[in-house]
Amino acid sequence: MTSRIAHPGLAAKVTSAEQAASFIDDHMTVGMSGFTGSGYPKAVPMALAKRIADERKAGRNLRVKVWTGASTGPELDGALAAADGIELRLPYNSDPTARERINKGEMEYLDMHLSQVAPMAWEGFLGPLDIAVIEVAGINADGSLIPSSSVGNNKTWLDRAHAVILEVNSWQNPALDGMHDIYYGTALPPNRVPIPLVRPDDRFGQPSFRCDPDKVIAVVETDAPDRNLPFAKPDDTALAIAGHIIEFFKHEVGKGRLPANLLPLQSGVGNIANAVLAGLLDAPFTDMTAYTEVLQDGMLDLLASGKLRMASCTAFSLSPDAAARLNSEMEQFRDRIILRPQEMSNHPEIVRRLGCLAMNGLIEADIYGNVNSTHIMGSRIQNGIGGSGDFARNAYLSIFMTPSTAKGGKISSIVPHVSHVDHIAQDVQVIVTEQGLADLRGLAPRRRAEVVIEKCAHPDYREMLRDYYERALKGSYGLQTPMLCGEALSWHQRFVDTGTMKL
Amino acid sequence: MTSRIAHPGLAAKVTSAEQAASFIDDHMTVGMSGFTGSGYPKAVPMALAKRIADERKAGRNLRVKVWTGASTGPELDGALAAADGIELRLPYNSDPTARERINKGEMEYLDMHLSQVAPMAWEGFLGPLDIAVIEVAGINADGSLIPSSSVGNNKTWLDRAHAVILEVNSWQNPALDGMHDIYYGTALPPNRVPIPLVRPDDRFGQPSFRCDPDKVIAVVETDAPDRNLPFAKPDDTALAIAGHIIEFFKHEVGKGRLPANLLPLQSGVGNIANAVLAGLLDAPFTDMTAYTEVLQDGMLDLLASGKLRMASCTAFSLSPDAAARLNSEMEQFRDRIILRPQEMSNHPEIVRRLGCLAMNGLIEADIYGNVNSTHIMGSRIQNGIGGSGDFARNAYLSIFMTPSTAKGGKISSIVPHVSHVDHIAQDVQVIVTEQGLADLRGLAPRRRAEVVIEKCAHPDYREMLRDYYERALKGSYGLQTPMLCGEALSWHQRFVDTGTMKL
Repeated sequence: MTSRIAHPGLAAKVTSAEQAASFIDDHMTVGMSGFTGSGYPKAVPMALAKRIADERKAGRNLRVKVWTGASTGPELDGALAAADGIELRLPYNSDPTARERINKGEMEYLDMHLSQVAPMAWEGFLGPLDIAVIEVAGINADGSLIPSSSVGNNKTWLDRAHAVILEVNSWQNPALDGMHDIYYGTALPPNRVPIPLVRPDDRFGQPSFRCDPDKVIAVVETDAPDRNLPFAKPDDTALAIAGHIIEFFKHEVGKGRLPANLLPLQSGVGNIANAVLAGLLDAPFTDMTAYTEVLQDGMLDLLASGKLRMASCTAFSLSPDAAARLNSEMEQFRDRIILRPQEMSNHPEIVRRLGCLAMNGLIEADIYGNVNSTHIMGSRIQNGIGGSGDFARNAYLSIFMTPSTAKGGKISSIVPHVSHVDHIAQDVQVIVTEQGLADLRGLAPRRRAEVVIEKCAHPDYREMLRDYYERALKGSYGLQTPMLCGEALSWHQRFVDTGTMKL
Repeated sequence: MTSRIAHPGLAAKVTSAEQAASFIDDHMTVGMSGFTGSGYPKAVPMALAKRIADERKAGRNLRVKVWTGASTGPELDGALAAADGIELRLPYNSDPTARERINKGEMEYLDMHLSQVAPMAWEGFLGPLDIAVIEVAGINADGSLIPSSSVGNNKTWLDRAHAVILEVNSWQNPALDGMHDIYYGTALPPNRVPIPLVRPDDRFGQPSFRCDPDKVIAVVETDAPDRNLPFAKPDDTALAIAGHIIEFFKHEVGKGRLPANLLPLQSGVGNIANAVLAGLLDAPFTDMTAYTEVLQDGMLDLLASGKLRMASCTAFSLSPDAAARLNSEMEQFRDRIILRPQEMSNHPEIVRRLGCLAMNGLIEADIYGNVNSTHIMGSRIQNGIGGSGDFARNAYLSIFMTPSTAKGGKISSIVPHVSHVDHIAQDVQVIVTEQGLADLRGLAPRRRAEVVIEKCAHPDYREMLRDYYERALKGSYGLQTPMLCGEALSWHQRFVDTGTMKL
């Protein structure tokens, strides 16, 4: 296994996960690798969780602040949350154990725009970073680090942390070496310069992380898979949503508002996003590109088909089957995938320049097109805003998609008034459910309401929405965005009280 | 007066405002100049308003869609709205007559991010543009146009419109010639390139607008002042807010999180913003710069003092006294002010690169730091989001400021839950009222609530907020962002019902 560590000084620092975890003390801030369940450290967090439990038994407190790229895996967020070892978590979480603690008020969670994490760390707005724990695919002879299956904020954690713990994971494909593009040209204002990217394919960085070997306090060897979960086969709802989006793209190409090969695709993660990507396999678009956060199964299929020329991302999020395929057919994918730091994959400057087609999920939208993508009933966080805000505001077209109902029909995804806002109506051009697609471009609020109710709402809720809207037109304080304050959130309160939004 | 028109072909097209207005037909889309009450056409819209009234008397409809840069003046929005001649208005309005029509549901209003208007027009998302009506300071011999006291979207309207009407306003100072920087390097994706600006001072465009003389269907000569309104002398509330912000800047410089000369200032318009700028006159910062939408009185004073090295904007918004001062002392200001198209003055790419210090007003903020800057009681629009979203999401520090109460204390600016969201908590780092300053950086929602209530709320409402928050901690569906759906908007409903938010 030590063949992955070509730097003698760092090879000499190989130790156990337990030993490495012993460097982490109470109240420390730990910057870990990991994005969408890939490239996160797998051994040290587990050892830390055990240490936390042991300390607690001994009557001592040990809780840490955990910063990552985005979501990790059960060995990190799951284990640390189960041990009640996380004081503050940022910038994104999707782990169910951590989510439960957060929503019980036992753990602080700072839900951030993913492009802003590294800049804010550099700006000093988040406090000091004590230790970085970073998974890498290998260590070069000069001490530079071969990134793993996600890049996330690793560059920043390695530069900013006072001390570094490395996990060298030999499960990761050695062919990852050379796929990354790590840009070291960022700076604090007033010294920032334009980012030299004009095509999703452009490389303007280096393949490895720099890292001062003297800062490395431990190297741990692992051989463990990423979280990689299987995707569900798209159901009829997902297929219907995908169909509406692809029809819309065809329509826009026909009108001359989109090039025939579209514009760089950004896609959130999940089964519906995957269905859209699968739908593009059969669509008439070729020579497509992707500039996105995460490369998931559907995008790998699109690459394999040749219809997607290349994809830029910051992380993989593959099913076990797709991960096996990537590993076995690496030669055909290797030069067509670029992994970048998340401050680049999500950079507003780049998203706006490229004119990405942003496709993201939502929890609920209101009749005016405001979108809640994080908080159930306004207070209970599901995952987090992630990169959706980076993309939605700057995209060429910002599309949000969802089944029209949830919880077996007891929740309408289209409501009179969203209980929490992540994306304001100005940042939402298109809303799609299996019922249809609402094209909101150029429409003032009252027009938007008509279209959203007509095109997107589930028939079980459509009349209720019309009824609310018509009464709002009569009883609202102002008529720019008609609203009944006493009733706007009544659907949510009804769900909390009765378990359904239905009357 | 014709000395302002050096192009013989265009001089030959000089005609009356009435004749020019006769080219505008029912349902047409008209792109007008104008931003924050400066540089808007003053004669043709008045003639159009008269024509609309005459047509109506004759039983014929004449209503138009009006696009501008931002707000205009009574001769444009006021006159056309009074005549009920506006079918749809975008992207910003502050005219009271138009506001009244909008909130009565008699006029459609599309409230847009100001940086996105020109791109969306080019992308074809807003429909075709029939006629541009643009005020200029003069016409060069080659037919290029000397911009007026605002740039706004004029470049785009001139390029996109099928026909052009020019108003040549000899009231505007001829010294405006050369102050503008009109960048013609924008493109649609996939052909966009980095914007070559790294300092607020950089010039990378040309001083004049290009315009095909054959498209010009009328030239109208005017000699009429901009809307220029006097500013109120800052009251104690404004001075207290300004004091908190300047103390905060000093603190951040002391901590090394801001350079000694700060970073480029962005400031919304209004009396509080003006008070902050006045406060900077006595603060220890020198060699400052501004990269903002609008140059108002306080910024002119800062320029005159030498503490502000230069200012980049898209428009002037000066009191009559300040306008007179600018005109009489033009030589000292001329080379230190740059006027750019609003897609550049507000461009997210530039705002993020420069690291602007964004200071904008709000109508209400909630205890978690979500900001409503447009809709009173969630439904009645005041002005619009303007450029605040362009700046707030991309700024180095996004600061929102407001008196802690409105309507003589009957409205609390800090509420349990905002009735409309323009700026999500992620885009709000600092909230300031006369009560104090809440620094929300790095704080998870429950911490934010404590700080906002403690630092910003008016004492009359502080206990009510604490009471709500404590009950939300017990009764909320989830505890990431505690909320009582049935009560969250009850303060607004109470105001609608009783005229006060107080119990």
